[in-house]
Formats: sequence, C-alpha cells, structure tokens
Amino acid sequence: MPTVLSKLPDYRRLRYVAYGCGLVSVAALFGLHPWQKSSKNAAADQNIVFAKTGKRSDKEKAGIDMSFLRRLMKILKVMIPGWWSKESGLLTLVAIMLIMRTHFDVWMIKNGTSIESSIIDRDRNRFLKHLFKYIFMQPPIALTNQMLKYGLNSLKLHFRKRFTLYMYEHYLQGYTYYKMSNLDNRISNPDQLLTQDIERFCNSVVDLYSNLSKPLLDILIYVYALANTIGAQGPATMIGYLVVSGMILTKMRQPIGKLTVVEQRYEGEFRFVNSRLITNSEEIAFYNGNEKEKSTIVHTFARLYEHLQKFVAFRFRMGIVDDIIAKYSATTCGYLIVSRPFMNLQNPRFENASHSELLEDYYRSGRMLVRLSQAIGRIVLAGREMTRLSGFTLRVTELMKVTKELNEGRYERTMVSQNESGDESGAVKKRRELIPGNGRYITKDFVICFDKVPLVTPNGDVLVEEMSFTVKSGINVLVCGPNGCGKSSLFRVLGELWPLFGGTVTKPERGKLFYVPQRPYMTLGTLRDQVIYPDSKEEMYRKGFTDEQLSEILRMVQLESILDREGGWDTIQDWMDVLSGGEKQRMAMARLFYHKPQFAILDECTSAVSVDVEGLIYQHCRAVGITLFTVSHRKSLWKHHEYYLHMDGRGKYEFKPIDDTTTEFGS
Amino acid sequence: MPTVLSKLPDYRRLRYVAYGCGLVSVAALFGLHPWQKSSKNAAADQNIVFAKTGKRSDKEKAGIDMSFLRRLMKILKVMIPGWWSKESGLLTLVAIMLIMRTHFDVWMIKNGTSIESSIIDRDRNRFLKHLFKYIFMQPPIALTNQMLKYGLNSLKLHFRKRFTLYMYEHYLQGYTYYKMSNLDNRISNPDQLLTQDIERFCNSVVDLYSNLSKPLLDILIYVYALANTIGAQGPATMIGYLVVSGMILTKMRQPIGKLTVVEQRYEGEFRFVNSRLITNSEEIAFYNGNEKEKSTIVHTFARLYEHLQKFVAFRFRMGIVDDIIAKYSATTCGYLIVSRPFMNLQNPRFENASHSELLEDYYRSGRMLVRLSQAIGRIVLAGREMTRLSGFTLRVTELMKVTKELNEGRYERTMVSQNESGDESGAVKKRRELIPGNGRYITKDFVICFDKVPLVTPNGDVLVEEMSFTVKSGINVLVCGPNGCGKSSLFRVLGELWPLFGGTVTKPERGKLFYVPQRPYMTLGTLRDQVIYPDSKEEMYRKGFTDEQLSEILRMVQLESILDREGGWDTIQDWMDVLSGGEKQRMAMARLFYHKPQFAILDECTSAVSVDVEGLIYQHCRAVGITLFTVSHRKSLWKHHEYYLHMDGRGKYEFKPIDDTTTEFGS
Repeated sequence: MPTVLSKLPDYRRLRYVAYGCGLVSVAALFGLHPWQKSSKNAAADQNIVFAKTGKRSDKEKAGIDMSFLRRLMKILKVMIPGWWSKESGLLTLVAIMLIMRTHFDVWMIKNGTSIESSIIDRDRNRFLKHLFKYIFMQPPIALTNQMLKYGLNSLKLHFRKRFTLYMYEHYLQGYTYYKMSNLDNRISNPDQLLTQDIERFCNSVVDLYSNLSKPLLDILIYVYALANTIGAQGPATMIGYLVVSGMILTKMRQPIGKLTVVEQRYEGEFRFVNSRLITNSEEIAFYNGNEKEKSTIVHTFARLYEHLQKFVAFRFRMGIVDDIIAKYSATTCGYLIVSRPFMNLQNPRFENASHSELLEDYYRSGRMLVRLSQAIGRIVLAGREMTRLSGFTLRVTELMKVTKELNEGRYERTMVSQNESGDESGAVKKRRELIPGNGRYITKDFVICFDKVPLVTPNGDVLVEEMSFTVKSGINVLVCGPNGCGKSSLFRVLGELWPLFGGTVTKPERGKLFYVPQRPYMTLGTLRDQVIYPDSKEEMYRKGFTDEQLSEILRMVQLESILDREGGWDTIQDWMDVLSGGEKQRMAMARLFYHKPQFAILDECTSAVSVDVEGLIYQHCRAVGITLFTVSHRKSLWKHHEYYLHMDGRGKYEFKPIDDTTTEFGS
Repeated sequence: MPTVLSKLPDYRRLRYVAYGCGLVSVAALFGLHPWQKSSKNAAADQNIVFAKTGKRSDKEKAGIDMSFLRRLMKILKVMIPGWWSKESGLLTLVAIMLIMRTHFDVWMIKNGTSIESSIIDRDRNRFLKHLFKYIFMQPPIALTNQMLKYGLNSLKLHFRKRFTLYMYEHYLQGYTYYKMSNLDNRISNPDQLLTQDIERFCNSVVDLYSNLSKPLLDILIYVYALANTIGAQGPATMIGYLVVSGMILTKMRQPIGKLTVVEQRYEGEFRFVNSRLITNSEEIAFYNGNEKEKSTIVHTFARLYEHLQKFVAFRFRMGIVDDIIAKYSATTCGYLIVSRPFMNLQNPRFENASHSELLEDYYRSGRMLVRLSQAIGRIVLAGREMTRLSGFTLRVTELMKVTKELNEGRYERTMVSQNESGDESGAVKKRRELIPGNGRYITKDFVICFDKVPLVTPNGDVLVEEMSFTVKSGINVLVCGPNGCGKSSLFRVLGELWPLFGGTVTKPERGKLFYVPQRPYMTLGTLRDQVIYPDSKEEMYRKGFTDEQLSEILRMVQLESILDREGGWDTIQDWMDVLSGGEKQRMAMARLFYHKPQFAILDECTSAVSVDVEGLIYQHCRAVGITLFTVSHRKSLWKHHEYYLHMDGRGKYEFKPIDDTTTEFGS
C-alpha cells in the first residue's frame, strides 16, 4: 500500500495506465461481448412463449404531452380538493421553505467564503466572528431543511390518503370489485394498483413538484446574484451551454424510455409466468409439468436478463458521454466564464483589490455558478422523472377509467373465438349477437321469474339459449345437472353479478335474496361478525338483535359449542383457518337465519353437515318463510322441495314439479 | 421579486423571520398535531381486524449479527461459485476501478485548486496549462466512473441470474412449487420472493459492497494525504468526532428499525386485505358485503396512514439532530481543524509562503477533509443499508429453507383446531395422531391398490378413516359422491401430491398415471405444445411421433378443425382464452391419447362434450388399454365402467361391481 501511495503525485504514469485500461475495457465491451450475437437467436427462440404481449404496448403511450397533463390535472383535483384544504396548506409550507432554503444557501456560500478567506489571511478575529455566525445559524437552517422534508413527506402521505379513499369509494361501490376481476380483463392486478402504484404515483408527483420548483427558484436567485458580480453574460452563457447540451443529451437518452418500457414488460411477463405457475400448480403437478414450466420460466428470465444486460451496456456508453458533456465540460465552461473578468487585466474592478478580496470575489461567483449548473442539471433530470410520472399516471388513470366504466355497466373482455365449423356438442354453443345489459330487471316481492333469459358466460359462451320459469314464495326448487351446466351461472345472473344478455328477470330487491356459497366465506373480525356478516355490530343492535338471540341461532345449527371453545362473541380469530369445513358450512346457515331473506340459494353448502342437522335446517327455513333454491346431489334433500330444475349441460333444461313419478337423481 | 431579492444581503432580518417561522412550526408539530390523541383510540378500535399478526413478528428478527452473516455467506456461495467465475472477475474489476477513481479524485482536487489559485493570481498561462490538463484527463476519468458503474450493474445482474436459477432448480424440483402454495403456509407469496425480493437482495448486496469499500479506501488515502499537509492530528480528530457522533446518531436512529418493521407489516396487511377481497370477490358480491369489506380496508389503511404520519414526524425530529450534528457541526469541526496550523503564527511552514501557496495549501486540505467526512458519513449510512440487507436476507433465506424442507417432505401448516365437543356430523371427523409421510408407496405396473389408507386433508380434516380397494388394468371405475366427499383428495393422494398419513398405496410410477383435471390447463406456447404437454417438441420427435399422428389424435376428439382455424401446429395463442370450454376438454383428452398411460383419472372432464364424442373417447381408451377412473354425474357413462366407488361425504364408502341391480346415480 505505501508504495502505491508514494506514487500518487506521478499522474503522468497513472494517466497511461488509465488509458490502457480504458481502451481494453472499451474493446471488451463493445466488440467481444457475446450477448450481441446470441440475443437474436434467443429472441427468435423465445418468442414462442408470449404470443400477444405486443398488443399491450400498442395501447396508449406514456409520454409527456397534453393528454398526460389532462390526466394529471384530473387526479390533482382529487388530491387537492380546495384552496383551504390541508394539502394546499402543505404546498404553501413547502413553497415558503423552498424560498427560505435558497436564501440560506446563498448566505452559507457568502459566509463560508468569508471564513475561508479569513483562514488564508490568518485573521483569527474575522475567522471566529464568521464561524460563530455559522454556528448561530445552524438551528434555523436545519429546521428549514427538515420542515421542507416534513412538508414533502406529509404531502405524499396526504395525497395518498385522498387518492386511496377516493379510489375505494368507487372500487367498492356495488360490485365493481367483482366485475373488475371476473368480468373485465383490462386490469389484472387491482390490488397492486391500489396499494403500490398509488403510493408511487403520489411520491412521484411530490418529488416532481420539489424537483422542478427548487431548481427554478435557484436559477432565478443565482442568476440575479451572479449578474451583480461577474455580469449577466457569464450566467447567460452557462445557461445557454447547459440548455443546448441538455437537449442533446435528452435526445441521446431517448432509447432509455423504450428500454425501460421493454424492461417493465419483461419483468411483468416474468412475474406473470411465476404467478401462473402458482395459480395452476395443482394441474401442473398432476401433469408432472414441472420441467416444461421450468423451461418456460427460465426462458422468460433469460430474455429479461439479456435485455437488462443490453440496458446496462447502453447506460455505460451513455454515462461516458453524460459525464463528459454534462459534468466535466460544464465545469470547464464554468472555469472559463469565471476566469474571464479576472484575466482581463484592464478590468477596473480588480485594480486596487487585495488578494483576499479577489479570493472572496472568485469563490462567491464560482460557487454560485456551480449551484446554478446543478440547478439546471436537476431540471434536465426532471424530464426523466416526468416520464416516470407519466407512466404511473397512465396506470392509475386506467384504473380510474375502468372503475368508472364498470360502475356504468360497460366492460371489455376477450370473447371466445368464433366457432363456425359447428363441431361443438349439439347446436347449443352457437353464437349470436350478444349485448351485455340487453336484459331487464323488475323488482317485485315474493316471486322470482325468468322470462326468455339466455344463460351466457361473460366471455360469450352460451350455456342455455333461453330460460323461462316462475317460482313463488313457499315453493322450494332443487337445481341439478352436471358440473358446468350453468347452475352457478344462473345464480350469478339472479344475483346481478353477471350482465343480463336478454329477457326479463323479476325478483325481490337485492337484500331479500341470499346466497350461501359452496366455499363459505368468513370475514376478518369477531365471532359475532361471522354470524351477522355483512352487517356491522351497530346495525345488528339497530335491528333489535341481542347476543342471546345470536346464541339461539348458533344453537339451531348446533354450533353453540364454539362460543365457549373460542372464548365468546368478541374473540378475533382467523376464522377461515380455525373453523372446520362443517363448522364453516353451519356458520353460513346461521348467517342465513340471522338475515331471514325471502329467497335463499343453497349451493352445495351442506355437504359436510349431517343429515339430521340438514333436515332441521330445511324445516326451520320453511318455518320462517325462506324459500330455497338448492343445489345438491343428495337424494335425502328431494323431499324438502316442490319443483326441480334440471340442466343437462348441453343447453337443455327441465322445470317440473316433484311428484311420485319423478326419478330422483343424486346419491 | 426584485424587492425580495434586494433584501437578500440583510440576513439579520431573515434570521428573525426564520426563527419565528421555525418556532411556530415546531409548536404546531410537537404539540398541536391531532394524531397523538387520536391514535390510541384508533388503535384500540382497529385491532379487531387482525388477530394474529403479532405472531409473525415474534419470528426470527432481522438484525445485524452472526446469524445474518452466516445466512449471507450461504447465499454468497451460491452467487459466487468460484475464484475463476465471471462474478469474481467483476468484483475485481470493481475493486480496481474504485482504486483508480479515488486516485483520480485526489488528482482532481489538486488540479482544481491549481486552476482556482491561478485565476485568483490572474496568471493566464498557469490557468490554461491546468485547464488543458483537466480537459485531457476527462475521458479516462469518465471511463473509470462508468466502468465502475458498469461493473456494479453487471454484478447485480449476474448475482440475480445465479441466485434465480439456483432457486428455480429447487423450487421446480418435484412438486415443491405445489407443496409451497398448497400444503405449507409459511410462504404466502413465492412469486414475489422469486422475482422482486431476489432482485432487491442482489442490488442491496452489491450496493453494500461499493458503499463499504469505496469510503474505506477514501479514508485510507485521504488520511494519508492529509497527514502530509496538516499533520495526523487533524484527520484523527475528525475521525474521532465523526465516529462518536455517528455512534450517538445510530443509537438515536434505532427506533427507525422498529418503525420500518411495523410499516412493512401494516403495508403487508393493507395489501393482504386487498388481495383477499379479490380472491373472495364472488362470495362477497353475493353477500353484498362491499360496505363491510370497505370498512375493513379503510380501517387497515387508516392504521397504516397513522403509522406513516408518526414515522414522518419522527424523521423530522431526527433530521434536525442529524443535520446539526452530522452535517453542520462536522463542517464547523473541519473549519477549526484546518484553520489551526494557519492560525499558529509561529508555524514555520507558512513563514515565507505566498498568498497563493497558502490558498492552495488550505484548499487541498480543506477539500480532502470534506471528502474524508463524506466518506465516514457514508460508512455510518452503510449501517442502515445493512439493516435493509439483513431484512432481505432473512426473506430469501426463509424461501431457501422452506424449499429445502419441502423437497425433503417436511411441511408446516395450521391444523384445524381440535374439536372435542363431538358435534361434527357423525364420528367421522374425529382427530387422531396424524403424521404426514406415515404411509408407504409401492411401485408396480398395471395395478392400483389402496390398503388401509386414510383420506386426510393437509390441515388434518379426516374425510375417510381408512380406505381399501384394488383395481387391475382393464377395470374402469366410476367414482361418485357429493361435493367435498373426498374424490379430489383421493386423486391427490394417488398422484402423490398430498402426503400419505398411513397405509400402503400400490401403483405404477408417476408417468404411467395420468390425470385429466376439471379445469383443463393449457400451457404457454404453440398448438402442438397443448397436445404433447408436458413433453417438448424434441421429446415428441424422439418418441417417434409425427405431426400427422398428432392430427390423427385431434381427429379422434373431433378437434381437427382448429388446426386450420388457428393456423397450424406452430401457432402461438393464449390458448386458455382462445379455446371454448368444450374445446379445452377435448384437447385434454387428445393429450391423454398422445401419452397413452396405463391409468387415467377423468375428473368431470367431459361435461361440455357431447354424448357421442364421449362414447368414442371411452371406446378408444379401452382399445388402447388405458384404464379409467371417472368422476361424473352422467348416467350415460355407467355403461363404460365395471366398478363404482361411492363416498357419501360423511366418512363411508362403497367399492362394488356394477351389475344389473346397481342403482345408477347421476343424471
């Protein structure tokens, strides 16, 4: 080590080493690196994986233009609701702190130069005076800095709060959340958008605000101050140089935008093949498909990797140009500008100046020039930040747009491809003009009536061409048929979850129709919340229920023991995990008894309940006047029903009364 | 604006403004802000949502200790496979570039000071000489900087590649991916870990490498250089001051670690309630539960928001202390140290020094001192970075550990809570000593035999106490029973997806048993890939298949038309979306005919296929010697089977031959 250090001053030798080393590396990087050859083959090879990803990028582009500003303004209106809101207060605080900080910066430069010149003059008194000034000013300066940061951080947080709550207001209105993940396929990850992307967007907006306003302010103040010492020409030249070089660099940097987009896409695809594996893990495991899936994943990763390598190499080349033009040449330019008045030996300003006056003069202008160039550099960089923001804006705007359209009942989805060869089973699956929302709902108590309603999945698969039946209160209906015949679809249409493609559905209002799903859903919260879901505790008391009555309900479904076992009504547990399958099903029945709707759909929801309890449940339903649609394969349930609706999975259905001649399906 | 600017020099006035403003803000922040009062109520109120989240944080802590180092070393061994790997080459490149850059930095300081002193001396020739030197050295300096960045970025990328491929090697071995998401509940988001967290970990490791080695090198070189100009005492005092203040600040910053952990947890919970909503969106939509879920989500967000507000306030207070101690007081300290030799009027070094020599002397040491303090500051900051890295390390290590344990057949899962009250349906669900992996598999061709095998879900729900039956090749079995009775569980045990809790299962090896799932799975890739899945094109040709034979298979399931419709065997499509339900089911059958296994399980996989095609499929299976287990509710299928296996969902089962006296279930 000492031998290396002792050679430090010999920079001539070092320079040759540097050049040699540099040339070798450049040669290695540009010429010999293998990726450039391999990437083409690899790309051709790997395109097999994703067929349609190109499509997505054809959509709206994230650029900085009028539509970006329009989108941004729209969101800003949500985030800053008015002139007297907290947010505008914080914006003002930040603005004031920015101005104060710039003033402090100027002061620090002046005072710092005074301290330094007094050291060089070996003037102890002046040194101490300025040093004490410096110490004295530290607290307000620190406070200003931190107030600024606090203001910015609070702003981010407040923006996020406003925006998040606004989004939930719309996302959780009606069935929008359901429609977004089940009927529409424009947005595949609303949770990511609602949590991470909104946060990123807010951070980006606030960062841009400070990254634009601070340097603009700096430029104003430094140009003004510099014009007083070295004349207006200096800073003007500097700005000119930096604007021109900034434009050139921005132009040269343009591929970065495209490279980033491609990187995002590849990262997204890599993520997608991973979550796809998890979603389909059972099927893949049954097929023993791990090697096949591995090759897909590894290929996707390889593509991402090669792209990232290209990107790193581009940044390397660009970085050298960046460094030389924007950093070192700007400094050279600065030296030349600052030196000009000094080198002019006829300059009257310096005629009788002492050495320390010259020094102070030089340093003030020099440092301000440095700050000026930094400020301009930051504005050039803000362009990049703005491109990022534009991307985030596009994503959250897309979420806002889709939410709004779903609320209005419009949705987009890939339809199953046309099938004209007619090789489908029977004539059932043939397509016709399908317009979602073409049907009509009529609200009427104590009756459910389908009038010429087609059963169509959201992507256009026709399950039953047309269905008509009427069920009055008191008439229980057993719904049967093979898997995929349209039982669940029927209920989704009845529950208004799926769009109506035609015909008329007469039914009571939403709250009076209850669905007990196959997979019993347990909410987060107390044991009481499970029974009264989706009511809140307050609503329960308002309806006049007491905890005793709830216990009574639990007793009815033979679940009273969990009250003791789990520790009472206010116990919080992860109920999805804590309750066994049968317990969850009985809990769902308890929920039904609490709500006492006019109609209820029981969708295979008593499969883990014993026959006696099942019988009691059906008797109780009849006693309190709940009319049932049951899906079940149990023969023991036929006796509780008056009609049956049978769908054969090939487009035919029967709706008939159950009598002695009926063949009972099921087991 | 001019009036403001004209007042610039009057800093006395500005100072009062600053103090006034500062005091008001501090008062507002510390005293009057409402969050401190509200947060307690809110916390009490919101704890209802998450019962057991506390548990998770009791687990291993992310700190900087021996176990962190051990974990890190283990991963580093994966990422740097040897002394002659690309990775160690890049590490060396980075090290060389770091040394070169530090030398260039020292050179820049010296040359810059010479330029400046020549300006102040108004010495045109010296100015130009040094300026040209500066211009001449720009390319190698820029190259060194960018080589360094390139090295670091490449290192990140290479580390990521090594680590990612290593993880996939293990994650996609056997059924580990299936087990992780279905049998184990320690890791809830492997996709996130495999994509994002590995990337973050690699970035963090490399950043730490450069953030530690660069400042350490800087300190060495600057201390050496400074000792030559102002003596060893100066830099020693400086280091002493910064070490002490660094320790104090690190101590004071400690709450940040805890605050970050809490923030992560709250962010995670917020994310969780969002994805939970999406997962259960259908059930929630049927229940009309949007208001209830909204209140849960909004409460979770409010808790996060309040925590973040507290965090911002803490950072504000901490930032003021940070600024004053680490930034401004360090500068003050630096001024004092540099000024000491100058103020000593007896110092022989300065006796005959010219003004410009004094200046150069001062600036060199001053700038080096600044660099020195920056270097130390960066090391102090590296502590924070290390805490972050420790967190990432813990997460990826957990993934590695779980992957390894799953490969060895060990898994952890919350078991359904003990249910001793005996109110379950029948005596079936009672628990007993359940040890996964207690059973035994025997490999034998042309027979499937269950001998006293219990059907138990991975979380301990017993579906059937004990099951025994034997099926020889050529005997088709129809499996029936209500939903949830254990049909799928039986197949999962047969497919070795679920652990065996006891008994003996005799069956052919994995590849000779084929499962056709309810949800037909289409892989990413070409049309050919769909038929031959999970084989690759190469394996297909090796097996002696031609595209004509594949077309023949498609004709068998009446799917030949899609060959023309979609454009041939090499068409890439999103097949999950492009094919209709019935087409997907027939494609799955084509896959079965391609593979011709000894046994096949058909799990409700012909529900959307017409009866005639179904019949042809069964005939073909018999012709080529595939023995079938069929799950179906179609009566038309009984005639293709010799035995039936009926489970009643309450723990009983029947395995009997089908003859004229058998009552056929189904429809």
